[in-house]
Amino acid sequence: MFKQLFKSIQEKVQLTEEELEVCKTFFIPKKLRKKQFLLQEGNSSVYNAFVEKGLLRSYTIDDKGNEHIVQFAIEGWWISDLSSFLSGSISNYTIEALENSELLLLTTSSREALMNAVPLFERYQRMLLQNAYIAMQARIASTLTETAEEKYTSLIHTYPGIIQRVPQHMIASYLGLTPETLSRIRKQISLRK
Amino acid sequence: MFKQLFKSIQEKVQLTEEELEVCKTFFIPKKLRKKQFLLQEGNSSVYNAFVEKGLLRSYTIDDKGNEHIVQFAIEGWWISDLSSFLSGSISNYTIEALENSELLLLTTSSREALMNAVPLFERYQRMLLQNAYIAMQARIASTLTETAEEKYTSLIHTYPGIIQRVPQHMIASYLGLTPETLSRIRKQISLRK
Repeated sequence: MFKQLFKSIQEKVQLTEEELEVCKTFFIPKKLRKKQFLLQEGNSSVYNAFVEKGLLRSYTIDDKGNEHIVQFAIEGWWISDLSSFLSGSISNYTIEALENSELLLLTTSSREALMNAVPLFERYQRMLLQNAYIAMQARIASTLTETAEEKYTSLIHTYPGIIQRVPQHMIASYLGLTPETLSRIRKQISLRK
Repeated sequence: MFKQLFKSIQEKVQLTEEELEVCKTFFIPKKLRKKQFLLQEGNSSVYNAFVEKGLLRSYTIDDKGNEHIVQFAIEGWWISDLSSFLSGSISNYTIEALENSELLLLTTSSREALMNAVPLFERYQRMLLQNAYIAMQARIASTLTETAEEKYTSLIHTYPGIIQRVPQHMIASYLGLTPETLSRIRKQISLRK
């Protein structure tokens, strides 16, 4: 169950076997079936979830009832509404499993306790935050400057294999495109090949 | 010179006088006159800068030659192209002083060394990253879901007093609006008051 998590940790910091065993005790294993929710809008994001297996999405619904997908998370990724998770505020996001998924959950207090018990886990968290920030910055730049086709290409680069796992209308929602525009772009790309 | 920085640190972690003195030795003080650059596109973002005094902006220029402002930084804020700063990659961003400014600079290696010398400084950096991430997430949600007027109101909330300090066409650029649209919004708001 901890295979992907330990891989993710060891890519960034060097923990001993003993420290890894300590880490284990702070996580809550959780299975979600497809279409079940980790978080529903209007609640607080109690868990920061590491994805051992499966696929989830977080999305928000605007005043006109349109869904906007903010993030996908596949094996090896973390997902939560970080803002709500850290502050305890109410979330505008919903996090839903798009496949049967296996998660490892931290609460804010178990995360704090783990960082105190295993100081290098705080370094790991800091490095994750750096990467998340960088990815987010790239996404903002992308929404401001990239063409629809460039956005699509970036998505494939960020989440390899996701095109096969996620319905096209969700890909379109993530990119801020209509399904028709996405369909046209995919056609253009395949014609060029 | 370190007044704002120490205030920023002490808001998040409790350092001793001795630790604060150690921190000082890792920073490079730097003054920039208005219109001088901290970073120019095509270079690597060598410094992460804390703003003791003044105002800066980071922006990127798209293929059509249009400027897009990504961030402002006022007293008490950090600014860099974090992605480039952490990875050493070439930056697509330019960081320019909009007022005469006083900065405190860290390089990647002095930042790492400081986190090792003063472990609570790593916690401070982790908390900054959390806040930066949260702010970035709010900004993405804003570009996806907010009306132009809501974006303008959020900006005023994020950077209090900035409306008086920054030319209107830069505010428009930050919000992704034309100067004409921004002007119309400001008129509407003032009529309602």
